[in-house]
Amino acid sequence: MKEANCIFCKIASGEIPSSKVFENDRVLAFLDSGPLSPGHTLLIPKDHFRDLRDISGEALGAVLAVAPRIADAVMKTTGATGLNFLQNTGATSGQAVFHVHFHLIPRGEADGLGYRWNAGKYAESELETYRARIAKALGSST
Amino acid sequence: MKEANCIFCKIASGEIPSSKVFENDRVLAFLDSGPLSPGHTLLIPKDHFRDLRDISGEALGAVLAVAPRIADAVMKTTGATGLNFLQNTGATSGQAVFHVHFHLIPRGEADGLGYRWNAGKYAESELETYRARIAKALGSST
Repeated sequence: MKEANCIFCKIASGEIPSSKVFENDRVLAFLDSGPLSPGHTLLIPKDHFRDLRDISGEALGAVLAVAPRIADAVMKTTGATGLNFLQNTGATSGQAVFHVHFHLIPRGEADGLGYRWNAGKYAESELETYRARIAKALGSST
Repeated sequence: MKEANCIFCKIASGEIPSSKVFENDRVLAFLDSGPLSPGHTLLIPKDHFRDLRDISGEALGAVLAVAPRIADAVMKTTGATGLNFLQNTGATSGQAVFHVHFHLIPRGEADGLGYRWNAGKYAESELETYRARIAKALGSST
């Protein structure tokens, strides 16, 4: 389950070196070499999946089973008081490498980072329209 | 595993109504009523955990097993070409409700959303310092 010319497959296999902080048979965590803040870590499955839609729920569970430990270690060692856990799916979301990866971004006061939080509002009928449409796509009875 | 006065515990139990799009015995997904974009969905475990450090790896796996399906349904029904999957840990990260929750934020071209991506650089020795420190905290032999 490797993809030719995928930089993260090559990092996972050791063909390209990385600043590894954790590894098991399913996952690898390594420092992002272009960090948003010191200790910015990437967590990836060793197998190739394109994005969040593409990874199996089972594989995602195995991968993310280690995320809490890594988040804790990153925060403790960097002294961060916050952390953003972020996965970008699709080019318009900011995804640049198409091997699913999760960013762990240490945060502190007034660090100029974070998500652009421009919250909007639904018209009442619009909220229900979106709710019903997504619920239907998920086969929900609600 | 409920916490008194936690709004997401009350939403999970049905005490406070929400715009549900998916539910099983472990998790609930519902529309954020202050959306960053239409279809902005929150995915939560029904049990109370504060943030990404606090949730057990096993519980996180169970919760996130449904994330790919929900991401797919949200993107298909909104017509989004991208999606940000985001969890904020700690007040300085932007976390406002202290019951762990994952945002699924539909994205499109030039929508003014996304993470503030101001990538920095490490001095070479600094990269290794952070790597070694985090690896050690994780008990890694690398």
